[in-house]
Amino acid sequence: MKLIRHPDKSQWSEFLTRPAFETVELTSTVNAILSDVKADGDAALRRYTATFDGCELDGFRINKEEITAAGEKVPDELKAAIRTAGGNIGKVHAAQAEPIKVIETSKGVTCWRKSVPIECVGLYVPGGTAPLFSTVLMLAIPAKLAGCREIILCSPPDQNGRMNETMLYAAELCGVTQIFKLGGAQAIAAMSYGTETVPKVHKIFGPGNQYVTCAKQLVFQTGTAIDLLAGPSEVAILADESSVPAFVAADLLSQAEHGRDSQVLLVSTSENVIEKTTAELEKQITRLPRSEIALAALENSKAILVDRVDTGIEIINEYAPEHLILGVDKADEVAERITNAGSVFIGNYSCESAGDYASGTNHTLPTAGFAKSFSGVSLDSFVKKITFQKLSASGFRELAPTIEIMAAAEGLEAHRRAVAIRLEEIDGI
Amino acid sequence: MKLIRHPDKSQWSEFLTRPAFETVELTSTVNAILSDVKADGDAALRRYTATFDGCELDGFRINKEEITAAGEKVPDELKAAIRTAGGNIGKVHAAQAEPIKVIETSKGVTCWRKSVPIECVGLYVPGGTAPLFSTVLMLAIPAKLAGCREIILCSPPDQNGRMNETMLYAAELCGVTQIFKLGGAQAIAAMSYGTETVPKVHKIFGPGNQYVTCAKQLVFQTGTAIDLLAGPSEVAILADESSVPAFVAADLLSQAEHGRDSQVLLVSTSENVIEKTTAELEKQITRLPRSEIALAALENSKAILVDRVDTGIEIINEYAPEHLILGVDKADEVAERITNAGSVFIGNYSCESAGDYASGTNHTLPTAGFAKSFSGVSLDSFVKKITFQKLSASGFRELAPTIEIMAAAEGLEAHRRAVAIRLEEIDGI
Repeated sequence: MKLIRHPDKSQWSEFLTRPAFETVELTSTVNAILSDVKADGDAALRRYTATFDGCELDGFRINKEEITAAGEKVPDELKAAIRTAGGNIGKVHAAQAEPIKVIETSKGVTCWRKSVPIECVGLYVPGGTAPLFSTVLMLAIPAKLAGCREIILCSPPDQNGRMNETMLYAAELCGVTQIFKLGGAQAIAAMSYGTETVPKVHKIFGPGNQYVTCAKQLVFQTGTAIDLLAGPSEVAILADESSVPAFVAADLLSQAEHGRDSQVLLVSTSENVIEKTTAELEKQITRLPRSEIALAALENSKAILVDRVDTGIEIINEYAPEHLILGVDKADEVAERITNAGSVFIGNYSCESAGDYASGTNHTLPTAGFAKSFSGVSLDSFVKKITFQKLSASGFRELAPTIEIMAAAEGLEAHRRAVAIRLEEIDGI
Repeated sequence: MKLIRHPDKSQWSEFLTRPAFETVELTSTVNAILSDVKADGDAALRRYTATFDGCELDGFRINKEEITAAGEKVPDELKAAIRTAGGNIGKVHAAQAEPIKVIETSKGVTCWRKSVPIECVGLYVPGGTAPLFSTVLMLAIPAKLAGCREIILCSPPDQNGRMNETMLYAAELCGVTQIFKLGGAQAIAAMSYGTETVPKVHKIFGPGNQYVTCAKQLVFQTGTAIDLLAGPSEVAILADESSVPAFVAADLLSQAEHGRDSQVLLVSTSENVIEKTTAELEKQITRLPRSEIALAALENSKAILVDRVDTGIEIINEYAPEHLILGVDKADEVAERITNAGSVFIGNYSCESAGDYASGTNHTLPTAGFAKSFSGVSLDSFVKKITFQKLSASGFRELAPTIEIMAAAEGLEAHRRAVAIRLEEIDGI
């Protein structure tokens, strides 16, 4: 980690800026994949799966027997853990449901909004070095709670044309309706346009590499909604003299092992804690199977020494981290002052792993500073909120002059006349 | 209107598909404007304002004196109407605030989420043929209620370099913090990147022509959030024998006058009502100042005769209109079955104009079928919802095995160790 001591505010942007996305260069490659899948459907999917995943598949859809067989291979202990985590995730997301509140804005004029499930949703879960079944929970549980009719899951097959068994178990448990062995930009294309076997969805969720992210960006432009544009994962930790360096180091490493491009930031009022954390990092990293990845990520990371917790809070709000761990004294009070973050972990026992898996909050969160304007995935992400209004004849009568005056002032005479013609009827003219 | 009788379901997509956006062709033009403003700031803004708005401006920011002077010129009757409408809009949006609910997912593990205002927001309101001060209300009122610190408004100047007075009055009333005479893609660029005089914002709201929409799409890719991609405005009306043809025609026209590309759809179980509505359209349109625009829009519009209300509901849910008027018998029951629409107007006295101006619901709504997956603008659009979690030592102890098992199964050893190292401390190992 690079130590930066008491930086002047004018320098903040220098070390808080993330490496730029390079989606532009990918655009033509990804566009070609999208066009191909749009035109050729399943045949194009077969070609890309052979090229990118190294396996020849006749069909992509996983059948009931395969799912049942996979479930039998998942150890009972892991199944129980998944159910416990799923239960917590369910509780948090169920509490996000919005009851209908009917508001009478003026006498006889009532307005309300209603959450209605997005009918078909597509969940993408990357394959690769780690089988992220936890992401299946984070996306499928709120989708099911929201009431989405069709919940599709796409995840790439391995070279033997198979999908991770725990992933299949989690998908079945959480109510995924169809599972496809499809990865990369071709999976996003399949869900966006639909093919002979893959249904077209209205919104696509989930993380992915730069090809997947670029594909989501492109299909968004042609009408498929997306959850977020996910960049490399990030954590910021605010530490003071009360922090436990061994915990801080372990948390930094748990972020750093995600990928070489992971962003890790330590902000501390204590140089002592920074030094001890650095020593702990060196000690702990040697024991990690993914130490090479973690090491690469740490090389780009920064420890920032600040004079006061206030300055630390200000830096963190400017950075807007995906994950924020407050391992400081009076962490609750500090949490109140956080204005830009995806998810906040309060106190020494709230490690990021807890939220990644099992506390109940969603782990699909805004990265790259998007936390300044985006929320993480929640129940809201799987519904749209339709507004309704109903005017009684007398409510309409009362409000009519207001509408007429405004419509006339905007020069929209037909808008005014839609009111006037009703007034004529009510007043019997 | 083109009458389509009892279409087979296989034909629906044919007449429900909207004309395609042609943003791709614009991209290079708009990209050039964005780059220019990014590089040259205010100087570029001056050049584009001279070219596109036909006026030479030294500065773009409107000062307090101009705002006060403008307010004095707005008729009292209009001011009162704006205040009435604003009051209703405020009531609806205030009710959308989400209280904090703390959920104990397992003993000692608490999770909650908190709505935090997006710090700086930019509102764009088009100029042109109609001064849309109502859009100022629809965007600035929820922004203010949400607690956004900086609320910027951009709207193009007229050829004399002036902005509509009612627009200025509405902006001041609703708490806009800075107003700029800037239009088109250059305004979007200014708010997205910031210039010498225009602050950089985190999210941009508001309708606009295809240049504005394209610019919003492009800045979204580089990190500025946007509300919606607005296409041409739309209305669908569901009518039966109980509908009033004069009202139906007036409502269709109030949509049609928006622009030549406005989308208008009448779905009816009664051929009689369709015929009478057509006759009313011919009668009413002659009286409109914007009759030429409305006529063009109507030429592309359709009346669909269906056998039953059920079929009509199905067609409407497939179309996903921005505005939906239910001028039918038992409109409340029909409303319950609407799954895809931006805003729904229930009964014969709930005309679209009411929601456009004064009922209290927001008029910034998803077009082009986006209502299948997007909500209209609401208080939610001006906040992000940050999640929090706090685990007590005992809560952590209890959940720890679940997290460890899952992290191990995903092959993320550092995630598991962040738990193990805390357990060691708790258990005194």
